[in-house]
Formats: sequence, C-alpha cells, structure tokens
Amino acid sequence: MATTIPVALGERGYEIEIGRGTLGEAASFLRQRRPIKHVVVVSDSTVGPLHGQRLVEALAGEGVRVDLLIVPAGETSKCVAEAEHLWHEMAKCNADRKTVVVAIGGGVVGDLAGFLAATYARGLGFFQIPTTLLAQVDSSVGGKVGINLPAAKNIVGAFWQPVGVLIDLDVLKTLPEREYRSGLAEVVKYGVIMDAAFFEYLERNVEGLIARDGEVLEYVVAQCCRLKALVVTQDEREETGIRAILNYGHTFGHAIEQVGGYGALLHGEAVAIGMVCASQLAEKMGRIPAEITKRQVELLKKLELPIAIGALDDDALLAAMRHDKKTESGRLRFVLPSRMGHVETVADVDLGLVREVLAANHL
Amino acid sequence: MATTIPVALGERGYEIEIGRGTLGEAASFLRQRRPIKHVVVVSDSTVGPLHGQRLVEALAGEGVRVDLLIVPAGETSKCVAEAEHLWHEMAKCNADRKTVVVAIGGGVVGDLAGFLAATYARGLGFFQIPTTLLAQVDSSVGGKVGINLPAAKNIVGAFWQPVGVLIDLDVLKTLPEREYRSGLAEVVKYGVIMDAAFFEYLERNVEGLIARDGEVLEYVVAQCCRLKALVVTQDEREETGIRAILNYGHTFGHAIEQVGGYGALLHGEAVAIGMVCASQLAEKMGRIPAEITKRQVELLKKLELPIAIGALDDDALLAAMRHDKKTESGRLRFVLPSRMGHVETVADVDLGLVREVLAANHL
Repeated sequence: MATTIPVALGERGYEIEIGRGTLGEAASFLRQRRPIKHVVVVSDSTVGPLHGQRLVEALAGEGVRVDLLIVPAGETSKCVAEAEHLWHEMAKCNADRKTVVVAIGGGVVGDLAGFLAATYARGLGFFQIPTTLLAQVDSSVGGKVGINLPAAKNIVGAFWQPVGVLIDLDVLKTLPEREYRSGLAEVVKYGVIMDAAFFEYLERNVEGLIARDGEVLEYVVAQCCRLKALVVTQDEREETGIRAILNYGHTFGHAIEQVGGYGALLHGEAVAIGMVCASQLAEKMGRIPAEITKRQVELLKKLELPIAIGALDDDALLAAMRHDKKTESGRLRFVLPSRMGHVETVADVDLGLVREVLAANHL
Repeated sequence: MATTIPVALGERGYEIEIGRGTLGEAASFLRQRRPIKHVVVVSDSTVGPLHGQRLVEALAGEGVRVDLLIVPAGETSKCVAEAEHLWHEMAKCNADRKTVVVAIGGGVVGDLAGFLAATYARGLGFFQIPTTLLAQVDSSVGGKVGINLPAAKNIVGAFWQPVGVLIDLDVLKTLPEREYRSGLAEVVKYGVIMDAAFFEYLERNVEGLIARDGEVLEYVVAQCCRLKALVVTQDEREETGIRAILNYGHTFGHAIEQVGGYGALLHGEAVAIGMVCASQLAEKMGRIPAEITKRQVELLKKLELPIAIGALDDDALLAAMRHDKKTESGRLRFVLPSRMGHVETVADVDLGLVREVLAANHL
C-alpha cells in the first residue's frame, strides 16, 4: 500500500516511494531503477548499525558488490574534511562511473553522500533512503546536496537529483523524540508557505502527530513530499524565485544554527525559531495580522518546539545572515508570509526591523 | 577578425571566440553574456602577473567589483586543499549567487576555478580565458572541471559548462617553449582521432607550428575547438561513448603522469607518450598497420615531444590505469586507432599486451 509520488523533472525525474516496512525491499527498488553492480552505502554512526548494516547485507545477499562508509553522526560531518575522507574511501574501494551511492540516514548523511555522488568521477547515480522525519519531508527530495564551511551553511554543493527516494515510515519508530519533533517544524512550514488546509489538518491532529500515528504520518509525509515536488519541478535550480519559498524560516534559522554552533540546536528547532522571527518581521512590516504568527507559535509550542533565540549575539546573527546564499549583492532578503498558506520573497528589508525582531525573541 | 565557434548545448550552449589581441576586450565579452556586478578572477602565480592583473584592472576600471585569487602555478594546485582555500576565499570576499568566476590561465587554473564555480553556492556563472595552447585546444572547452586525488587524476569534479570561452592567441607569445610543445601533443591527437586531413596539415606545417606562426595557429586552434565542440555536443556527459575518443593517449598518459609524480612531465608530454603506447597496443592487436604509429612518432619527434616512458615501474602504471575513471567494474578499456582519423573504444584489453607495450617503451 505504498504511495508513489513522481518528481517531474524530465530526464532527471524520479519517484518517491512512501510505505511501511519497505526497507527490506530496497534492493529491488534500486535494481528497478539502475543496474547495480557496485553500491556504496553511506550512513552514520547512529543509523549505520540500526538500518545501514541490514541494507548492506540484503544487497550482498543478492550478489551485489557493496561497501559501507560510516561518518560520525551530527552536523559537523557536513564538512570539507569528511567529504575528502569519503573521496579517498571511494578510490580505495575502486569505485567507478557505474558505482551507485545510497544515502541511508538523516539530512546530514543525505547532503554529504549526495555531494559525494555529485562530485566523484564527475557524478554518480544516487539514491536517498531518509530515516529521519526531517529528511523524509525535506532534504531527501529536490536534489540539493552539499557541505558547510565555517563561514556559511550549505555554501559548497550542487544540484544533484537522486534516481529514487525510498521512504520507510517504520524507521521513524526508532527516531529519538527530539529529532522527531525537529522534523515536525518543517512539516509546519509546508502548511504556512503553501497549504492553509494542511496547516489546519496539523492543528487538528496534534495528538496523532505526537503519538507518531501511522495513518497521520503517511498522510503528512506524502503531502509534504507532494508539495515539495510541486515547488522543485517549477524551479529546479532555485532560479525563478519559486523554490525560495521553501526557505521560509531559514534565513533566521541558518544564522541561529551557525552562531549557536552547529549541533547546539537541531535544524528543525532553528527553523521553528526562524519561522516565528520571520512571521514577526512580516507583522512589523504590516504584511500580516498578529493572528498568523499566533497560530504558528501555538502549534509549534504544542509540538514542543522552541520559539526563542536564547542568548545569541545579534550582531553575529546579522553578520551570518549577510553570508546567506539568498543575499544578492549584499541586500538582505527574506521569505515572509502574506497570509496563511502563502509566502513571498521580500528584498531590501530594513535592518532595523530585523534587529527589533531579534531583540524581542531572546527569551 | 575573430573566429566564433558555437558549442550547441541547448540552454547550456556557449561560444568560443578566437582572435588576436582580444584580451583587452574581455570585460565586454563577459558583459555581453552575463550581468557582471561581482567577478572573481582566478589565476596562478605565473599568469596572474602577466595577464590576470590586467584583466582585473580593466574590470575595476568599468566599475565592476572584482577580486583576484591566485593559486601556485602547477598541477599540484589541483587538489582538495587548494579547492578548500578557494571556497574560504569566496566566503571572505562575500561572493553570492550572482558572482561570476573567470579562470585566466592554463588547464590547472581552468579545472580548479571551474570546480569552484560548479560547487560554490551550488553553481556560479563561469568564463574561461585559457592562456596555454593546451587549455585553448582542449581543457577550456567541454565543461570538464575538477581536481586530483593522490589516488587518481581528475577523479573529483563535475560537468560544468562555461558561459563563454575567450581565446587570445597573442598570449601564446609569452608561453614557455616546453609548455607550447606540450600543447601541440593534444593538437596532434585531434588529427589521429577524427580528422586525417588535419593530421596531414600538421605534417605539412611543422615549421609554422614550431615558429608559432599567427595564421597557422589561428587555423589550428579553431579547428581543434571545432572538432572538440562536435564531440562534446554529441555526448556532453561522456555517457554514449562518443566523448571517450578524446581520451586517446590518456589512459596510458594519466598513469604516466601519476606514477611519475604530477609535474615531472607536462600533461601533453604524457599524452604524447600515451598516444604512442596506445597506437602500439592497437598494432599488437592487429587493428592498424605499423605505418599509423610511425607517422605519429615522426610528427611528435619533429615537434620535440617525448615518446618513451622512462624509468617508471610497470606494476605501478598498471595499478594506476585500473583507477582510471574509464575503467568500468574493473575491466581495462582503451581508445585505440582503427585508421588515421578514426579511433574506437576497446573493452577487455589483454593485460599481457599492455605489459608488452610498457616494457618496450621505457627508453
């Protein structure tokens, strides 16, 4: 009873398959889409023992030559040194142009393994098997891959579409509570940016969300993937501005993550805070009534997500925002709501208002 | 009186403009093809002072914000550490998505700067201004960019097409003799792989080639670019096998470069030796008469290019060939001539014959 969502990108198009207990069928999922003689499975020190090893055994059992590369769990692995390590490991295991890279893990593993796939031998076939809610509803779909520099998050990378995305909802059962909640922040984001009815569905289903109810999850993950696919197919390389709406909450969020030190806050937690900041900024600019912010704050609070910045330095946050890729020739741009279910990109935002928002959100 | 050669790659298509004394018009060449608010010029310690600085001043004089990044001259700069250094420099000079990267230099600068452009902020506009003969006839056209690992040359990289290629033949006047001759090896290659008449033209014009005669050079560079564009447009990502013909001499050549240590031999010198080895291999396999090899050897000798491997270890050379990207799942493949002006990719080559060729070419 899997849900299949097509991502219509022409010759780079692919499918997202969402089901329960489908990880065991991963080998056939891959084989239906690519010849698999040599597979490099990339995972991390948390997910590797839980699911990666099982995938490797399943592939090896079918006679596929398979290597498992494990990186340390956590955002700090999205760095040049870890990419370099993986490049060397690929050479060591005699990877060639027909080698297929499979990422099994969260967003960090997907982004890093995707960057490996995009750059090794000028580009290898790549599959995503996201195992966190955040990766399932966001980072595994759309082809953004990359690593961080100390100066800016995701600044080194590529657009490299996967050949397929396999989502097994059962793996969410082992996801730690805090990580799960963090993923819900991106779920809430989809409602705010493009689907008011979906936002209402989330408001009505807080209990099911918290309980990780199977049916609620299947609907929520599928709807998020559908919405993301809709955006990505209209603006694959973030050129027309359409794709930028996915960055709602992320200009503040990335700065908060960076200044706080990667790992202090989870990505979704930073995005939750970032959405509240962005919504307040929109309010201050007279773009939305306070009600829109209030509904987000209440839903995020019920999902036990943070909404305050804490003790971070405002100047450092502003400096980090200026390094964000969304800045163009130095001007600060934000994605801001204009009503529930709709956002717009706003250029030339008054820095004074941004400062006011930061100042009001420390506790 | 510039020659303009289109590279017909649809939305990624671009033009190669070949002329004399055109470097001074670089700013308008860029501006006609992209909005240029911020340009990062990448050059090396040799070409930077000769031509890079002049380009920077011309751009700055027109009010463009411009940064100059200089890497040490030589193949060793095509490494992870130098790429990382450039990524950091880009962040320092507040590069954003509208920043345009211009490579001015030889193949090393082009490949490295191209990799920077392909990966920074998930891809920036990129121009090539090749200043060596080798870069003008080969590496600046076709979109291959990347860096080396100790284990294999060009193994980390991307296909990233430039927005335009500006070739000023006058800059060849300052090119050291050995580098110039090295470039002629790739010129000879085009004759062998796809244009018997062009090979004959080269045989007839050895004196003009050695004297760097302006008219001979303009014809030769334009014809090489035409031939390369023809191949690249038929097989942009080296998927159909057509583009592989450009690798004639390169399976042996890359191994010779790698085992000899990057920098001991120039790339074209290694390719010259590699072409002789490949042609002899084809002879041993009964694919061509000895005459075809003999004509290549004689032309290369007249152009004072090396044709012997020297004191490198055969086992090390064979091991290096196995790491070559062109190997597929461990089998050794070579591009071999079937007549003058035509080559084919040959899979499953007998390793014993490869060993015989190596053994016969040490002195």
